[in-house]
Amino acid sequence: MKILVCNDDGIGADGIFHLADTLSEIGDVSVIAPISEQSAVGHSITMKVPLRFNEYKLRNNITGYAINGTPADCVKFGIKNLLKETPDIVVSGINHGANTAISIIYSGTVSAAREAAIMGCPAIAFSITDHKPSHFESARKVVKKITKEVIEKGLKKGTLLNVNIPNLPEDQIKGILLAKQGTSKWNDIYEERTDPYGNNYYWLTGTMTDYDNDIKSDQIAVKNNYVAITPIHFDLTDYETFKDIEKWDLTYDK
Amino acid sequence: MKILVCNDDGIGADGIFHLADTLSEIGDVSVIAPISEQSAVGHSITMKVPLRFNEYKLRNNITGYAINGTPADCVKFGIKNLLKETPDIVVSGINHGANTAISIIYSGTVSAAREAAIMGCPAIAFSITDHKPSHFESARKVVKKITKEVIEKGLKKGTLLNVNIPNLPEDQIKGILLAKQGTSKWNDIYEERTDPYGNNYYWLTGTMTDYDNDIKSDQIAVKNNYVAITPIHFDLTDYETFKDIEKWDLTYDK
Repeated sequence: MKILVCNDDGIGADGIFHLADTLSEIGDVSVIAPISEQSAVGHSITMKVPLRFNEYKLRNNITGYAINGTPADCVKFGIKNLLKETPDIVVSGINHGANTAISIIYSGTVSAAREAAIMGCPAIAFSITDHKPSHFESARKVVKKITKEVIEKGLKKGTLLNVNIPNLPEDQIKGILLAKQGTSKWNDIYEERTDPYGNNYYWLTGTMTDYDNDIKSDQIAVKNNYVAITPIHFDLTDYETFKDIEKWDLTYDK
Repeated sequence: MKILVCNDDGIGADGIFHLADTLSEIGDVSVIAPISEQSAVGHSITMKVPLRFNEYKLRNNITGYAINGTPADCVKFGIKNLLKETPDIVVSGINHGANTAISIIYSGTVSAAREAAIMGCPAIAFSITDHKPSHFESARKVVKKITKEVIEKGLKKGTLLNVNIPNLPEDQIKGILLAKQGTSKWNDIYEERTDPYGNNYYWLTGTMTDYDNDIKSDQIAVKNNYVAITPIHFDLTDYETFKDIEKWDLTYDK
């Protein structure tokens, strides 16, 4: 079982260490991840500067590669040029911070797994719901269980799993729920500051606002101490809206 | 009618000039776009460095703002801090190069429109199928027609339109087709080179491979000289796969 591990917090993050370390119990792990933090880069890929890589040894002695690129770059370049064969599964994370609801759209962690799915490979993204996680022992247990399920049961081509795990001791986790992507959104605020030269600059900040109350949506599930697992795909077509647009005037007058 | 115009090729690109210029015939246009090219940045947002903006005058004297950020930043920051009210519609492009099939995932142009849709605003992304477009006159006609249709008919909340226009003279465009996101994919190649210091570096390159043959998929439609319009949304949940996963063992053993 050949497993490629990636993340967006950078190859030196705690989350990727715990992920690689856990998965080394069930297969041969390769770690290919960004050299620096790449949070919120979405599905960005590097085209205007070239990529480079360096060997990097994790603290459990797993040897990996650090790339000067995005999470999606790591998967693309890693599979094409470093591994030179498609792994059996790509696992991304463990992200420090939830990737639920609208955050899925901005997430580098989820995009790494999505790049794998685009390349025809089963893929999972794992996140723990705190930017300073303290309960990796619970997350490790979930990683092992869900990864084994995916290996055993398989995933439809083009579908990946997005898994969010509460940052809680094992005995406080209520269970695992299959959940949809929620509609909770960030209420963005740009904090204005002035630099020493008298020019204004703006920091993005904000809080998540929950619009769902269905326990079977990812954000609400994790808030209620459940692990949320959500199958996602990359056919963005809104087939429902087709019917509306069929009524539009789409003649092209030359 | 208040129209916000954005792109990913940068505020100095020809495409955004033609877009703003065309739309100024049907409403009040504000241009808020990246100061530098941001192709393939996907839905990246800037969190680790602060944003800054400068006024920028387009060659038709429309005044805009250039931001040191991504397309999604421009829409978020532009609506929150510069416009201070939600525009009636956000229009992104005209991108130099197609954003069909898998390219939708990587596209900054589409992500700008998607950010608007997330913020509850009707949005359209326009692209012309050549990196060095020569037929903006055809694209302008399509921009005007489709934008007017969206203003008149409306779009469901959370849905945006992705429009791809062949780079052809008007009389060679066969018509406008409602099309789904295709499954055509890039066959990625990383070209290896050596820098003057003896270190290897890698440039992403590749060609698009078409897997569809249905004229009602975006990439095939534009290849056959049709304008393709595709409604897309940001609920990535793969509801079909729910049924499969319901059969999995999802017990959490404490």
